Amino acid sequence: MSGAEKYKYERIADDVDHLIQCGAFKPGDRIPSVREMSRQRDVSISTVLQAYYLLEARGLILARPRSGFYVRRDLPSDLPEPEISSPAADPTQVSMQELISRVVHTETRRPDLIQLGVAHPNPSLAATQELNRTMASVARRMGDAGGLYDYPPGCEKLRIQIAKRSLTAGCSLAPDDIIITSGCSEAVSFCLRAACQPGDTVAIESPICFDTLRCLDVLDLKALEIPTHPREGISLDALRFAIEHNQVSACLTISNFNNPLGSCIPDEKKRELVALLTEHEIPLIENDIFGELYFGDSRPSVAKAYDREGLVMLCSSFSKSLCPAYRVGWVVPGRYHSAVEWLKYTSSLAAPTLSEYAIAEFMSGGGYDPYLRRTRRSYERNVAAMSQAVRRFFPEGGSTQSPTKLTRPSGGFVLWVELPESVDSLVLYKRALEAGIAITPGYLFSATDQYRNFIRLNAANWSDDAEKAVERLGRHIARMA
Amino acid sequence: MSGAEKYKYERIADDVDHLIQCGAFKPGDRIPSVREMSRQRDVSISTVLQAYYLLEARGLILARPRSGFYVRRDLPSDLPEPEISSPAADPTQVSMQELISRVVHTETRRPDLIQLGVAHPNPSLAATQELNRTMASVARRMGDAGGLYDYPPGCEKLRIQIAKRSLTAGCSLAPDDIIITSGCSEAVSFCLRAACQPGDTVAIESPICFDTLRCLDVLDLKALEIPTHPREGISLDALRFAIEHNQVSACLTISNFNNPLGSCIPDEKKRELVALLTEHEIPLIENDIFGELYFGDSRPSVAKAYDREGLVMLCSSFSKSLCPAYRVGWVVPGRYHSAVEWLKYTSSLAAPTLSEYAIAEFMSGGGYDPYLRRTRRSYERNVAAMSQAVRRFFPEGGSTQSPTKLTRPSGGFVLWVELPESVDSLVLYKRALEAGIAITPGYLFSATDQYRNFIRLNAANWSDDAEKAVERLGRHIARMA
Repeated sequence: MSGAEKYKYERIADDVDHLIQCGAFKPGDRIPSVREMSRQRDVSISTVLQAYYLLEARGLILARPRSGFYVRRDLPSDLPEPEISSPAADPTQVSMQELISRVVHTETRRPDLIQLGVAHPNPSLAATQELNRTMASVARRMGDAGGLYDYPPGCEKLRIQIAKRSLTAGCSLAPDDIIITSGCSEAVSFCLRAACQPGDTVAIESPICFDTLRCLDVLDLKALEIPTHPREGISLDALRFAIEHNQVSACLTISNFNNPLGSCIPDEKKRELVALLTEHEIPLIENDIFGELYFGDSRPSVAKAYDREGLVMLCSSFSKSLCPAYRVGWVVPGRYHSAVEWLKYTSSLAAPTLSEYAIAEFMSGGGYDPYLRRTRRSYERNVAAMSQAVRRFFPEGGSTQSPTKLTRPSGGFVLWVELPESVDSLVLYKRALEAGIAITPGYLFSATDQYRNFIRLNAANWSDDAEKAVERLGRHIARMA
Repeated sequence: MSGAEKYKYERIADDVDHLIQCGAFKPGDRIPSVREMSRQRDVSISTVLQAYYLLEARGLILARPRSGFYVRRDLPSDLPEPEISSPAADPTQVSMQELISRVVHTETRRPDLIQLGVAHPNPSLAATQELNRTMASVARRMGDAGGLYDYPPGCEKLRIQIAKRSLTAGCSLAPDDIIITSGCSEAVSFCLRAACQPGDTVAIESPICFDTLRCLDVLDLKALEIPTHPREGISLDALRFAIEHNQVSACLTISNFNNPLGSCIPDEKKRELVALLTEHEIPLIENDIFGELYFGDSRPSVAKAYDREGLVMLCSSFSKSLCPAYRVGWVVPGRYHSAVEWLKYTSSLAAPTLSEYAIAEFMSGGGYDPYLRRTRRSYERNVAAMSQAVRRFFPEGGSTQSPTKLTRPSGGFVLWVELPESVDSLVLYKRALEAGIAITPGYLFSATDQYRNFIRLNAANWSDDAEKAVERLGRHIARMA
């Protein structure tokens, strides 16, 4: 056999070996037939057979007469024994990127944890099942037309529904003002790219959700953190001072129910905010992702409602109010419309057609408002219950010790808790995990390590177990305080 | 009535007026009830009534007793009369952005046109209906679990399917090598952002699909266009020269069935390409979106198969081979894995869950290969038939005139046609549109105006009408030649 021939069959054997080792082919799976593999890799039948014999010799596959080659169910255990455990280093040494990955990634997929961490809506409160039924029906009806996507600005039916709904937020957007995006993150990212150059400074509410901070970081933008009132949002005095003493290229707020604060900028203050920024020709990137989840009688307006110069870029999505998995958001970029549309076109082209149509149909079918009313009530109840539990179980403070402080959100589903100063939220995060509880450490909500003794708690999934978890957290905190 | 009160009701009236004028509320639609509006806008019932009376006075809405307010079916026609037509200026003066928007946007949604332009797959050949049935079934089955998304790298089930399939392209990717993206555009965009800084130079095959050029432009990257053989892809000699005389940060090829050339880099040449780039530590961004649509006996390999240093970043999607509307692509970023994963996380978070699961299930269910076999045969037939028609109807050239030249693609579904030198493809594009035919002018495939007398034709939707369209095009070209 020539060297080239030997190389070929070993190469095929190694490739299949790799796919078995990494679990792509599982015990009992049929691997491609000799004929298929010969055609796929453009080699002779005998080369493939050589490869498969080699895999048999390695104890990885076996032949079943007249059926083919299968991955053995008794794969040789060449996995090494676990080594002596080496616990993670001091958690404060974890890089921000690694920490975020851990928080959002590993822990959200661990059903064994009580989830008080990542700010996902409650899966059983989300409209997933209703929406999926609509999706199934749309998928069956659309035929070949469902195969193509709508280029930016995206599905008109959906933009009409969003435009109609803008009335409730004090606007009267036209469908053509709106561009559909892959969720609110993409909308915010496009606005930052349209309004800023690398190296620019963006004034932001502080604390603010870490997705925003990471997005600024990746785009090489500087965050200028502005003091923010726990109920009334960004401080206009501080913002004015910041603008007058810095070259600020954009301002970013979560006007309604800031994540994690739950603050909501009052309407009159929104008007002043827009006036202040307009005076300095600074665009406002407004994230309204929680806007529909208000506890009061009416939806708070958006700052966009007071925008006469096209300087407010309104970003939102259905991820908190309806269902995260559909990945449908939108942006109203004002005077940056054509820049943002072009970014969408060159970055990810289009939103998934069926998701767009399913949501449009769900909204026009009249189910959205009753659903939202139910959901708001549930979140309001859950936030109240969790607040109650925090008051009951977290340290009240004393002569030598600062008390626990707690936000009073008027919408959304997260709480922001200031712990006694001696409590390091990363240490608490780690101890909580060991106790089966996921929380989000305050470190993640600032670019400048402002909130080391804060944690964010998600009240969306309130339950008896969650209550017990808050009690256990309280005991850990008391010991650390 | 106070001034503030007057302001409020006029504001509401203007907002609803706007929504009627822009078509969000259509004739016959019910507008929000007085009570709803009062709650939504946090104003008194009488303020809303004032607003609605004003809208009645403007002739826009009417009240129906015990039912509500409706948009009039006989809206006042205050639309201005059309003005004297002003035909578009010389088409060569259209900006590239505007031209692309026209080509891809306006024309794809015009069912009156014969579509030989945008490189979409044939909607009735695409697996849309089969896939939508799978989607409907997945949507019904997933329950609340379908409401959350998988953080990057994305749905594991789907990554396993993609990993298994990589065998046919000469690789043995592990599921963990793969990151799911919103289509191939996003994958390419992330690779460019991970490997390059603004101002950097990227060596690309020329001609190349305009999406790539626009993406480079938006990211402030320079395109260095490398001569490309119509059957064998990028010229290695030219690439070597370019690398040795320029600071090249990345190279980008559509290795299998370049769009628009249809060229396919032979396996041995792919190996040399990777060796050349590895020697200079230059990453290769490989777009393999057409790779499954080969006409020969076996799938061509990808350059990634020869990558030992993690320098090849393989990008692909299901948009050409399965269905564009699902917006699911992937990237295998090699040593840039963590940078690309982080870009996905901070840019658009996740792909739509149901799309991911539906495709994974379609692939594991065994329907994908039979579907691909049918589709490849259809495209091969359509490309042959269109080539035949071009040969028959386009000018052959003569003593004073250069002949039509035509690519011989061995996969994909587009043809690249060089017309007699005197033919300006933008003028032809305009005349073709007037004659009801969409084509893509060659201008769009170069950053340096290389291809003014070229056009791209999409053979995917071949039909009798398409044949007549090619005949008509031929007559226009003959007149312009």
